[in-house]
Amino acid sequence: MKKWRRSARLVDMTRLLIQEPHKLIPLGTFAERYGTAKSSISEDLDIIHAVLEAQGAGVLETVAGAAGGVRFIPRLDRSRTEAVVKELCERLADPDRILPGGYLYLSDLLGDPALIREIGLIWATLFAGERIDAVVTVETKGIPLAYATATHLGTAVAIVRRDSRVTEGSVVTINAVSGSSRRIRTFSLARRSLKEGSRVLVVDDFMKAGGTVRGMVDLLAEFRAEVAGVCVMVESPAQERLVDDYVSLAKVEEIDVKSRKIAVSLGNLFTKGVGFQ
Amino acid sequence: MKKWRRSARLVDMTRLLIQEPHKLIPLGTFAERYGTAKSSISEDLDIIHAVLEAQGAGVLETVAGAAGGVRFIPRLDRSRTEAVVKELCERLADPDRILPGGYLYLSDLLGDPALIREIGLIWATLFAGERIDAVVTVETKGIPLAYATATHLGTAVAIVRRDSRVTEGSVVTINAVSGSSRRIRTFSLARRSLKEGSRVLVVDDFMKAGGTVRGMVDLLAEFRAEVAGVCVMVESPAQERLVDDYVSLAKVEEIDVKSRKIAVSLGNLFTKGVGFQ
Repeated sequence: MKKWRRSARLVDMTRLLIQEPHKLIPLGTFAERYGTAKSSISEDLDIIHAVLEAQGAGVLETVAGAAGGVRFIPRLDRSRTEAVVKELCERLADPDRILPGGYLYLSDLLGDPALIREIGLIWATLFAGERIDAVVTVETKGIPLAYATATHLGTAVAIVRRDSRVTEGSVVTINAVSGSSRRIRTFSLARRSLKEGSRVLVVDDFMKAGGTVRGMVDLLAEFRAEVAGVCVMVESPAQERLVDDYVSLAKVEEIDVKSRKIAVSLGNLFTKGVGFQ
Repeated sequence: MKKWRRSARLVDMTRLLIQEPHKLIPLGTFAERYGTAKSSISEDLDIIHAVLEAQGAGVLETVAGAAGGVRFIPRLDRSRTEAVVKELCERLADPDRILPGGYLYLSDLLGDPALIREIGLIWATLFAGERIDAVVTVETKGIPLAYATATHLGTAVAIVRRDSRVTEGSVVTINAVSGSSRRIRTFSLARRSLKEGSRVLVVDDFMKAGGTVRGMVDLLAEFRAEVAGVCVMVESPAQERLVDDYVSLAKVEEIDVKSRKIAVSLGNLFTKGVGFQ
């Protein structure tokens, strides 16, 4: 096999490692791929690790032993996180988002894969040190956020449905009362979409009273799932909250339909974001 | 500013380029970031391009001029594509997927971000050479595939709803007859989620008669959108097709509920996949 030069190895290893976060790659796989001694591979990995860490982009985690190898744990550093959240707040304050009835149009943000990718990375950074088996959300708007987060955590995704479809097989269903509108809503999750006793991260795009998140959490209890955390992109004020422990990126304080002004402030990420740095 | 060594530059540039496919990065940005002459940056880019191309992982595209720069165009090469499709077919043939009524359980595949990422990359590879403004799908199962594809294409995502929500603002709605079940179904798309005259790629997880895709295409006509292509993960035989021109990865020929056997074959990707190599 042709021997690779270090410069070529660094490019190829960087690509393979960051393309699949949290995936363990044995050093032997690299050594064989490049026709190089493991000692050189280790030196390569030291270089990659040093650059990634210095740039606040993540770290390489080495697992020793026969079943060992190296994996990439992505991170978004504090300054980049602040920049993403600041941009989100600015985009949220755009009065063109105000819809009849004082609702907020968010689909343009959720339709922007680059923004969604970085929000998922922020949440993955928060929970990088914890065991997460699956990221759970409810259709429809939470789905892109759930996939972005799961990609950076290297976990599966389970999607709660508002209806129960024949293509889901046997499902667990609960009915919950919406916190804000007081309507009764149904939440269903396919039995086989989540293992019993999983440790899950719940994410969603918007939270007012928290009825939707509450419904997910109650449904997850039926799967004996442990909720490691709740992340929402935007929260808005509510009289009574059905969820206390959550992390939000932005807070829409007030929507003045008449003067067409939206008051946006930072969410509780930087104050509450456990393990955040 | 501290001068970077080439090895460190290669790692950092590779990361920045592949993290945001199709995003144009000016050479000056790199030169400034690394305190290096543009000539050295060009040499670095030549190394990265050579490795990516040799590994069938994509290419670096350089745009000359003042507004110029370099962007990463991801690709999945033929052999890797065949491996992904083969794995998909094997997983589809698992009899445990058979649901009452002869339906097929797919949520485990759609809940696997690594598989979804590579399927999106296959579709992005097919259309890498074309102008695509947005990837369009219908809620719910198509959404992860749409985001994976849009991420690799560097485009936006627009999600067609089965219902029209107050949080979407003004929407365009059409009613269409489902090809297989002959039920009438509603398709809605928020006016502001897609610019008039956009060139779009339509993706979905499953296609039988094609009523859902047909509904999307008809709805897109209301936006004067040009459909560049239609990609489905799985197709199944139907008497009459409402869509002729599409690319599928796998084909479920038959589901025998009694003997619990699923006959799966390759989709038309390798025979029909225009521009595929």
